[in-house]
Amino acid sequence: MTTMAILISGRGSNMMALAERCTSGDLDGRIAFVASDRSDAPGLDGARRMGLPTALLPYGERGRMAAEEALSDLITREGVDWIVLAGFMRLLSPSFVDSHRGRIVNIHPSLLPSFPGVDAIGQAWEYGVAVTGVTIHLVDEKMDHGPILAQEALPVLPTEGRQSLEERMHQLEHRLYGDTLKRLFRCRLTFEGRRVLFDN
Amino acid sequence: MTTMAILISGRGSNMMALAERCTSGDLDGRIAFVASDRSDAPGLDGARRMGLPTALLPYGERGRMAAEEALSDLITREGVDWIVLAGFMRLLSPSFVDSHRGRIVNIHPSLLPSFPGVDAIGQAWEYGVAVTGVTIHLVDEKMDHGPILAQEALPVLPTEGRQSLEERMHQLEHRLYGDTLKRLFRCRLTFEGRRVLFDN
Repeated sequence: MTTMAILISGRGSNMMALAERCTSGDLDGRIAFVASDRSDAPGLDGARRMGLPTALLPYGERGRMAAEEALSDLITREGVDWIVLAGFMRLLSPSFVDSHRGRIVNIHPSLLPSFPGVDAIGQAWEYGVAVTGVTIHLVDEKMDHGPILAQEALPVLPTEGRQSLEERMHQLEHRLYGDTLKRLFRCRLTFEGRRVLFDN
Repeated sequence: MTTMAILISGRGSNMMALAERCTSGDLDGRIAFVASDRSDAPGLDGARRMGLPTALLPYGERGRMAAEEALSDLITREGVDWIVLAGFMRLLSPSFVDSHRGRIVNIHPSLLPSFPGVDAIGQAWEYGVAVTGVTIHLVDEKMDHGPILAQEALPVLPTEGRQSLEERMHQLEHRLYGDTLKRLFRCRLTFEGRRVLFDN
């Protein structure tokens, strides 16, 4: 069974959706721990309620290098296969990414390369796009930039407001992240430049 | 009936698709003329074969300002309602855009703001996106930037090559441009910032 560490900074709704899919057996994975850079991330409570081990990464007190060392130690100790970012708002250092290359995955609520960075749904809304969507990608040194594993489009409905769009985006995120990890755990990846091919 | 001027630089396949829809009566519009900045644009021959008047804009000989003056004269003389860019590779000047604001429309083969500029399909392919698509937008002073009128997504198939993607993109372009102009000719537009609403 594939072992994951999930990193969050906020309410962790993608983490909760993944945890539920592991519990139901739909996703053949085990969540070794949920780690946050913020002690007040509501998702930590959610993880505890699901019976998942949690960890607080000491970004605030001791800085990025120490926080990433603590994270690497946990990853090694727990035998983690995949580091799964789920609303984790810190940029991982080049040396951390290099040490765990090809084993870190992120979800971003836009069709990258459109709207990287914070509040992607709001950025897309203000830009007036007629189609947005969700991206799952491998993490590299640049923000929201690594090779794309999956994307799915979501049309913005002419009659809906921003809140409706956000709700539909979150539903899509929860479904697509689980579906993509499922494929990822079963396949081997090959690369043609940035293009990712899934071999079964 | 709404009158269009279509601007091309190359083979003009979108122009030809629009001309066919006008001929069939599916699109309630008249193409006053097809203009090109290049005398060797293959689309000029296509336009002539369709019985459409053509014009060569003197960008090469006399520069942008003179070429845009010639275009503005034609537009006024022919009573053109919409200036329709279809693979036109020149950036229109701010003063031209200002004179014809809200009456210039462009098609771009990506889901903007991703992949503006030349060879958008190739850019998307090399980036390794899993979803691309087509954008129809109003033209403003910046390249591939104005308010979005329509977008439609196209998934990149895991098994296809770049040529297959390009063919499917062109099919989508031809359909979406006609569909969007049809709506545009029937509706009034209102704006909320960059967001465009179609009122019937």
